[in-house]
Amino acid sequence: MSSQSILAFAPGTPASRLNEWLQFFDTNGTTAVQQFLGDAPVILAHGPGVETRAPASFTAPVAKVAVTGDFRLGRRELRPQGTIVRIGDAAVGDGSLNVFAGPCAVENEQQLLACADVAANYGSVGLRGGAFKPRTSPYSFQGLKWAGLELLAGARQHTGLPILTEVLDPRHVERVAEIADGLQIGARNMQNFELLTEVGKSGRPVVLKRGFGCTVDETLAAAEYVLAQGNDQVILCERGIRTFEHATRFTLDISAVALMKQRSHLPVMVDPSHSVGIPALVEPVSMAAAAAGADALLIDVHVAPEQALCDGKQALLPSDFGALMGKLELLAMGLGRKMAGVMRPVLADVER
Amino acid sequence: MSSQSILAFAPGTPASRLNEWLQFFDTNGTTAVQQFLGDAPVILAHGPGVETRAPASFTAPVAKVAVTGDFRLGRRELRPQGTIVRIGDAAVGDGSLNVFAGPCAVENEQQLLACADVAANYGSVGLRGGAFKPRTSPYSFQGLKWAGLELLAGARQHTGLPILTEVLDPRHVERVAEIADGLQIGARNMQNFELLTEVGKSGRPVVLKRGFGCTVDETLAAAEYVLAQGNDQVILCERGIRTFEHATRFTLDISAVALMKQRSHLPVMVDPSHSVGIPALVEPVSMAAAAAGADALLIDVHVAPEQALCDGKQALLPSDFGALMGKLELLAMGLGRKMAGVMRPVLADVER
Amino acid sequence: MSSQSILAFAPGTPASRLNEWLQFFDTNGTTAVQQFLGDAPVILAHGPGVETRAPASFTAPVAKVAVTGDFRLGRRELRPQGTIVRIGDAAVGDGSLNVFAGPCAVENEQQLLACADVAANYGSVGLRGGAFKPRTSPYSFQGLKWAGLELLAGARQHTGLPILTEVLDPRHVERVAEIADGLQIGARNMQNFELLTEVGKSGRPVVLKRGFGCTVDETLAAAEYVLAQGNDQVILCERGIRTFEHATRFTLDISAVALMKQRSHLPVMVDPSHSVGIPALVEPVSMAAAAAGADALLIDVHVAPEQALCDGKQALLPSDFGALMGKLELLAMGLGRKMAGVMRPVLADVER
Amino acid sequence: MSSQSILAFAPGTPASRLNEWLQFFDTNGTTAVQQFLGDAPVILAHGPGVETRAPASFTAPVAKVAVTGDFRLGRRELRPQGTIVRIGDAAVGDGSLNVFAGPCAVENEQQLLACADVAANYGSVGLRGGAFKPRTSPYSFQGLKWAGLELLAGARQHTGLPILTEVLDPRHVERVAEIADGLQIGARNMQNFELLTEVGKSGRPVVLKRGFGCTVDETLAAAEYVLAQGNDQVILCERGIRTFEHATRFTLDISAVALMKQRSHLPVMVDPSHSVGIPALVEPVSMAAAAAGADALLIDVHVAPEQALCDGKQALLPSDFGALMGKLELLAMGLGRKMAGVMRPVLADVER
Repeated sequence: MSSQSILAFAPGTPASRLNEWLQFFDTNGTTAVQQFLGDAPVILAHGPGVETRAPASFTAPVAKVAVTGDFRLGRRELRPQGTIVRIGDAAVGDGSLNVFAGPCAVENEQQLLACADVAANYGSVGLRGGAFKPRTSPYSFQGLKWAGLELLAGARQHTGLPILTEVLDPRHVERVAEIADGLQIGARNMQNFELLTEVGKSGRPVVLKRGFGCTVDETLAAAEYVLAQGNDQVILCERGIRTFEHATRFTLDISAVALMKQRSHLPVMVDPSHSVGIPALVEPVSMAAAAAGADALLIDVHVAPEQALCDGKQALLPSDFGALMGKLELLAMGLGRKMAGVMRPVLADVER
Repeated sequence: MSSQSILAFAPGTPASRLNEWLQFFDTNGTTAVQQFLGDAPVILAHGPGVETRAPASFTAPVAKVAVTGDFRLGRRELRPQGTIVRIGDAAVGDGSLNVFAGPCAVENEQQLLACADVAANYGSVGLRGGAFKPRTSPYSFQGLKWAGLELLAGARQHTGLPILTEVLDPRHVERVAEIADGLQIGARNMQNFELLTEVGKSGRPVVLKRGFGCTVDETLAAAEYVLAQGNDQVILCERGIRTFEHATRFTLDISAVALMKQRSHLPVMVDPSHSVGIPALVEPVSMAAAAAGADALLIDVHVAPEQALCDGKQALLPSDFGALMGKLELLAMGLGRKMAGVMRPVLADVER
Repeated sequence: MSSQSILAFAPGTPASRLNEWLQFFDTNGTTAVQQFLGDAPVILAHGPGVETRAPASFTAPVAKVAVTGDFRLGRRELRPQGTIVRIGDAAVGDGSLNVFAGPCAVENEQQLLACADVAANYGSVGLRGGAFKPRTSPYSFQGLKWAGLELLAGARQHTGLPILTEVLDPRHVERVAEIADGLQIGARNMQNFELLTEVGKSGRPVVLKRGFGCTVDETLAAAEYVLAQGNDQVILCERGIRTFEHATRFTLDISAVALMKQRSHLPVMVDPSHSVGIPALVEPVSMAAAAAGADALLIDVHVAPEQALCDGKQALLPSDFGALMGKLELLAMGLGRKMAGVMRPVLADVER
Repeated sequence: MSSQSILAFAPGTPASRLNEWLQFFDTNGTTAVQQFLGDAPVILAHGPGVETRAPASFTAPVAKVAVTGDFRLGRRELRPQGTIVRIGDAAVGDGSLNVFAGPCAVENEQQLLACADVAANYGSVGLRGGAFKPRTSPYSFQGLKWAGLELLAGARQHTGLPILTEVLDPRHVERVAEIADGLQIGARNMQNFELLTEVGKSGRPVVLKRGFGCTVDETLAAAEYVLAQGNDQVILCERGIRTFEHATRFTLDISAVALMKQRSHLPVMVDPSHSVGIPALVEPVSMAAAAAGADALLIDVHVAPEQALCDGKQALLPSDFGALMGKLELLAMGLGRKMAGVMRPVLADVER
């Protein structure tokens, strides 16, 4: 595996100062390219530490790391303070605990608005909902597609919550990105590299779900596909892996949450609902995820789970979701953190 | 899960006779749709066995099956004799043992032609080679892309072997299908349903690799995405799953080979090379796959594995590939089968 | 699978009243046996609910459950308030958060006493330490055996902490049980049923570690081997399972913690150290385990991890252990729980 | 990990000549110990190749290998021709294909003799049958124990086949070894190191089943526990590992069969029955195992599978077993091998 030196510069560093560096590497026989990590210029230079011999007059990088292998722009050393990903007003990665909630799939306007109200009333910072649904079988409900996306836009207007929704096809990215506040890459598409490149180009915040058969290293490598397009607005999402244990739908890899936080500057989300697939386990697993350091949770909530067209059996009832939000608030205090959203007490009462 | 009755009719059954059936279901309050399984008309009727009350004058189906769940058109009961998938002159599924060989990735004309000669001389029925390479990291070699596809076309002309190559992006399917004899869906894309639908529409033969985190049931369900487009030319390919055992790259699920043969009418291929990732294990695992009933093998061969740009370490040397082909021929006899390809003895000697 | 009715009676229920029940079942053609769940008499009756027809004069059971399958005496329904397992003064299962800490293996007196002091000073409720070590290879350090057990007894005298240690061989159980306060069954022995039976008979508290290749259901079934001997002092211990993810040594199954709490009345312990195998992950994973509802944690601490004879690389340094204990205390407040142990501030300062 | 030089000498090498070597190592400051690999003396010397400086007059070892890590006495380099394990008249490891068949559990005399006749008539070289059954639940049938062992001895007398049976408890080894021709260590006990040591001491041939959660490396390390007692009569048995795929009971790791053959001089057995758990898959998986190089197969056969007290659902019917034996004979020819057993045609006809 090739080794690289990566130098990160302060946003706004003039091109002329970066060019000094690039020419210096070139003169010293080292291939170097400039990219952006968000608005911070980054220079990636092949090979063994030529940069230590650079003239003192050069603009010093704000961070520097020598890497072997393919995990580069996402490395924590390049941005020790961490990246904040903004989805609407939510600031995931600022230390607070953010909950995105909503139905697995958008089914119709009434269902979506009811679920969106629950999400909003109990303090979610964003609304999740699938318009395009990747289904194991071609004979299952595939989502309302573009019509579902319109409904999500309506729910955003209704609640004020930003919307987070999955995109499946590179041909759809541009159009979905016009409407959605955040794009979700599903577990089955984590290594759909054409799709990752397109969402990278879109500039939209991306929730990248770990493939259920993929390692942490592969997840970090997949994030590089988005980062390499200059898009640093990436949230890594742990949602369970396939193991021999079938008492739960997947096995949530709680250690991976901490590991990704330590290795990468990107914020980490956890999806307890799809991981466990059992409502009674969503609360304890959500608590665990927050305690392990997750920046955000993604939770299925449905006003009538038994009628859901997709994955209903794992969704929380509104009242259980409310109870969870209350417990998370106390937990956050024990962790020295705060909940990002605000509960809306009056509406919440009505809801009950 | 809904239950279905599926009726398969002989190819050439007149539309008028099928319409009798469709009207009969409609009259009896049963939703029914007509599709094709290759050139055989198939009627899928929801619900509980209305067809048993159809008039005796109706054209009788050649096969009939009641199903629960989402595995439908691929079921063995619909075509007990099995499906033959034709890639160029190769007839995968006719009982013979077919080997497709070649380099993991197309690197340049010289490398490709040298590998193609090896494949042809030792009796392969087709040439494998990747032009578009899905790589874990954006910083790895991504394949020669369209130029690689042109080289594959040249290698086909040179050797007479049909070419099998991977397609990654739904936007590429039409153009790749114009050149390639068979389209390969990689393990990372087994649940890229948009891509599956496009290769289904293309009408080209498809090698569908099992996702390394996916079950046999999910693999069969993924095949339905292709079959549902009227394309029955699908080969299921076992290439190893992710397990805790890391002595080999993946764990080849040999039982799945037999299971897929028993459950589905589609032929089954095995990719020992990517499964084990160790050249010394390719031979015994290939032998095992054939003995378990695989219709075809997909084997990495490279004239200079140590210089390969992608997955070289698992490729067989030409001489080892030749030795394997000899052993497979003897094994096939012990199985009451025959090798599909023909060794070209004179050229093979030159090769050595 | 056979179905059973299980009736639990209050401790102290006279034998004569239980015999009424047993005779009633016998008269009604139902096989029934009496056992004990701790000091509570339990009657297990085969078959379909004869007990509903029992005379009103009979002593009513305090809990009753109909079961199918082999998970019987451990079921939460039989003791909804949960079981408290007492190891020395520690009361695991009373709602508090209990930490057992110490070295993986007892190496010598100096090492053990130093580690024991650290454990005690920072508020552990018990001392862990292996005298008999099950090692993958016969050529690895196998523990100090009986001499190690003597050292553990000395460390108990020195610190006042009860000792928890592993037993490997059914022939050793009686003698180990004379010295140790709690017996640990290692993951490799979870299905060593002869050993389980012996520790059941010993009457000592048992920490039953989940096998790394075993399901939650199998873990609960293994506990039945102990419970069936009338020993209800069993703690279930999650310590990670084998998965394809090798970034950590094992994958801690955090959902299993909650699942076992919900299904069983037995308290649950988590071993973050052996699960992750990386010191930097022990803290977040410990926090997660507590938040998921674990009653106890089992943590490797070593005063000189780099010199440890067994699994040193995963042990926490004393200062890191102290920091963790402080965070757990705050976390417990956020969870509405309390830490069971007491930090010894003066000594702790000296330690630093 | 420490490195070792291992020197194997010809059987019968005089102690005086070995002592020269041991003194030489001692003089050169290298710790060395002498053991036996079967009847071949072996010297294990710590550290870096002192033996290259030994006087030419010393007796030369017949094989020599430098090792790192804990896989020592089982290494193929020490006995490149492979080890033959003799169970009764069977010679497992001599290149032939050996089938051991019988019921999972001994249930009664009639059942055992009927199954034993089937095994014998169709050419098995040994009779399998469990007297002590390790069961997940204490409430399941645990075997006939000592009475079952007596029945096995009777079946041996009846058929002339040697008997292979499981031993669970170190306290039982001596007595079981007096009766059984071969001792089986079950998957759940592969890392029951006390038991491994006892069976090593017994001197009896041992079939060591791979733990379903254990790696190939761990299996080889477990074999060292037996080998280190001077007992080289060990057969490694692959019987499937736990993976996310539940379409079969376990996932047979076919690559491991070849890998163990390449790494170790010990013969390899495969247990298709327990691996797949589905009778229809036993035949193709048996064929695959033989083609991958397995020396032996262990197959459940039952005259009335639906009445079996243990794992009946996976047992082959006599007629299916006979068909398999016929196919294996043809396959063996294709592999240039021969079946070890002899079909008894007259009795076989009666059986049908």
